[in-house]
Amino acid sequence: MKPIHIGLLGVGTVGGGTYTVLKRNHEEIARRAGRDIVITMIADKDLEKARKLADPSVIVTDNAHEITTHPDIDIVVELIGGQTIAKDLILEAIAHGKHVVTANKALLANHGTEIFAVARAKGAIVAFEAAVAGGIPIIKALREGLTANRITWIAGIINGTANFILSEMREKGLSFAQVLEQAQKLGYAEADPTYDIEGIDAAHKITLMSAIAFGIPVQFSKVYTEGITQLTGEDIRYAEELGYRIKLLGITKRVEKGIELRVHPTLIPMRRLIANVEGVMNAVVVKGDAVGATLYYGAGAGSEPTASAVIADLVDVTRMQTADPMHRVPTLSFQPDLLSDTPVIPMEEVETAYYMRMQVIDKPGVMADITRIVADYNISISALIQKEASADSNTVSIIMLTHLTVEKNINAAIVRIETLSVVTGKVIRIRIEELKD
Amino acid sequence: MKPIHIGLLGVGTVGGGTYTVLKRNHEEIARRAGRDIVITMIADKDLEKARKLADPSVIVTDNAHEITTHPDIDIVVELIGGQTIAKDLILEAIAHGKHVVTANKALLANHGTEIFAVARAKGAIVAFEAAVAGGIPIIKALREGLTANRITWIAGIINGTANFILSEMREKGLSFAQVLEQAQKLGYAEADPTYDIEGIDAAHKITLMSAIAFGIPVQFSKVYTEGITQLTGEDIRYAEELGYRIKLLGITKRVEKGIELRVHPTLIPMRRLIANVEGVMNAVVVKGDAVGATLYYGAGAGSEPTASAVIADLVDVTRMQTADPMHRVPTLSFQPDLLSDTPVIPMEEVETAYYMRMQVIDKPGVMADITRIVADYNISISALIQKEASADSNTVSIIMLTHLTVEKNINAAIVRIETLSVVTGKVIRIRIEELKD
Repeated sequence: MKPIHIGLLGVGTVGGGTYTVLKRNHEEIARRAGRDIVITMIADKDLEKARKLADPSVIVTDNAHEITTHPDIDIVVELIGGQTIAKDLILEAIAHGKHVVTANKALLANHGTEIFAVARAKGAIVAFEAAVAGGIPIIKALREGLTANRITWIAGIINGTANFILSEMREKGLSFAQVLEQAQKLGYAEADPTYDIEGIDAAHKITLMSAIAFGIPVQFSKVYTEGITQLTGEDIRYAEELGYRIKLLGITKRVEKGIELRVHPTLIPMRRLIANVEGVMNAVVVKGDAVGATLYYGAGAGSEPTASAVIADLVDVTRMQTADPMHRVPTLSFQPDLLSDTPVIPMEEVETAYYMRMQVIDKPGVMADITRIVADYNISISALIQKEASADSNTVSIIMLTHLTVEKNINAAIVRIETLSVVTGKVIRIRIEELKD
Repeated sequence: MKPIHIGLLGVGTVGGGTYTVLKRNHEEIARRAGRDIVITMIADKDLEKARKLADPSVIVTDNAHEITTHPDIDIVVELIGGQTIAKDLILEAIAHGKHVVTANKALLANHGTEIFAVARAKGAIVAFEAAVAGGIPIIKALREGLTANRITWIAGIINGTANFILSEMREKGLSFAQVLEQAQKLGYAEADPTYDIEGIDAAHKITLMSAIAFGIPVQFSKVYTEGITQLTGEDIRYAEELGYRIKLLGITKRVEKGIELRVHPTLIPMRRLIANVEGVMNAVVVKGDAVGATLYYGAGAGSEPTASAVIADLVDVTRMQTADPMHRVPTLSFQPDLLSDTPVIPMEEVETAYYMRMQVIDKPGVMADITRIVADYNISISALIQKEASADSNTVSIIMLTHLTVEKNINAAIVRIETLSVVTGKVIRIRIEELKD
């Protein structure tokens, strides 16, 4: 059978890995796919770099449009990133009858609805396994492996940089700033780490998973996002004492009022498998009504792990293109004319449990004042711990764990607690998820 | 589009779950599959039970042949089990142009090559996600999610009963016999638990995964199988002290000489995620050359978790049947005419590390005698620990950990050690796997 011709846009970390792995495992991949999958054209601004990577038979260009419009190309692999040029090139490739494989989570989380609609009109496939959790085949698990289930929730460690920082803070007792600096030196964090440490990258990924799990459109603007920059070693330690680990989680959940969609630091019970995922590794837990909780773990980034996902998509697209479009795996798992308009609910309405820490002046009546306020907002306390005062301070730390509570009540209670004269500074508030099997 | 008509053979635990989940999540499943998937016929010897489960519109029969030969049935779901009637029915269904979904690992591990060949000749699909690790979509991950990779090894906790027993022995300090009795009372172990505790069930499953990972035929007769009946609390405790957990693993590995295929109790480092999989849960680690180690975790048995896998296959088959056969996902991941004849190597030739425990009379020169024998067989020791003698005994335990060694050398060394007059009883030998990422 005629080989499938791939045009590769971008030979950065993932592009380079894709070329290398496809070449190295060429024979096994062809034995699986039933035909050859060959990169025949490469575009990159850095022609030197592209030529160094590619065999002489590959056409190398600095004009990506040559690839997206070339009649011999079957699938365009977009690994440029960003939301401007990448978007134009993907739309152009689709317009020219090509299928698209991309790792561009930012683009799909923001413009997925538009891109998927255009692709659908043209009968083109847009595949994006590499956009979420790197080499872990989580999109495939959600779209195909768990089709029997009504998905209840997903919770994932889906940013390796943030997880590395939290692991190091806990294991070595270092501060956020110290570990960030170290991560940047090791190449685990970028010079501008905003997307990773502020939870934006995780928000892109949970947006995509949420759409697939619940059959709703991608709605990046609706994600509540809170990063890890404010986390202190103190809270990590106290959480540990209480049997919890703090992880930056992307969470999406189906509740009565709609869909929850959020990224924030979260206390999870230490005995859960996902609490033990350390360093740059990723893991996603999916709870389905039939299967219960399943977990998927692996490298969430890096050259060859991400290439593994890109190439799996290439094999899938190679296979799927011969099926009639109604029988292809739908882009967002559900048939596009059967998406649901279930609303994403505002963070204020989300119900979860909370860890709170406050510094108070150690005198009689403080506990009574605080618990009175909490009771006023119908917040039920599951644990209340006063930590010994340090020698050089007249304040003590109070740790409070709550049962399930609506976020707006916690927020209102915190505002009132902070006005108490015995409370010094801000109340720290971190959400808790039990993630029961 | 016309609904897909399913004929269900067997309404036991999994059959009942399949009917229930398909009915309950009917609407979401149809939104994903693009068409209705409906069980229209059910066969079971127990007509009463089948009628109680099914809606009145479903045809219920005690003659399974009515279903396998019925012109309106598109897919036959075989959930009877066993290797005789089930095999005949599957072959009959294929002969009548039906696709088959089955959870029957024993049948496929033993007769897969024959069944797959017959199916291929008829253009029929045989799907078996439910045969391995229950609800975990591990067959899909191996066949489709990791197509980019040259798989290096797979190691799995793929028998929930055995894992439950080992977890309880460790956590509660009970003996094998005590926990087995308890597991039987709880329904986690069958009246005849041989398949689970002797590793046979795990051997069926690792046989199937090995074939898919390495593109070799299913070869159940080649699996080395050792169960957990000889394990003592003592070894579990010593392993723990050394930083290891003991798990019954199914392991298959590609090495220079061929393919390793084995099931046995294994020490694995406690810090590995899979070492922390407890109770009846299953987990499989797959190491690929591009992606590194990925792990898949979930319920490995039970009514609805297994039904989740059966139904995922139904959706897959529904989709795949419209693709031309060359573009379907191959049954064993690789195109059937491109299977490899890489041999499964005998256990004697397998290289691994070992934990050994022996009881010796506590007198000078014992260590020298033992280490001399070990050196004679080129076995390199990584740790040697002498445990204090108990008050009422004149013997002590010696624990020895080795570096990588060929199994036949360990066996020969053990024979010689056991002939030493200072050594009382048998030498306990448990393999160690580091399972590095």
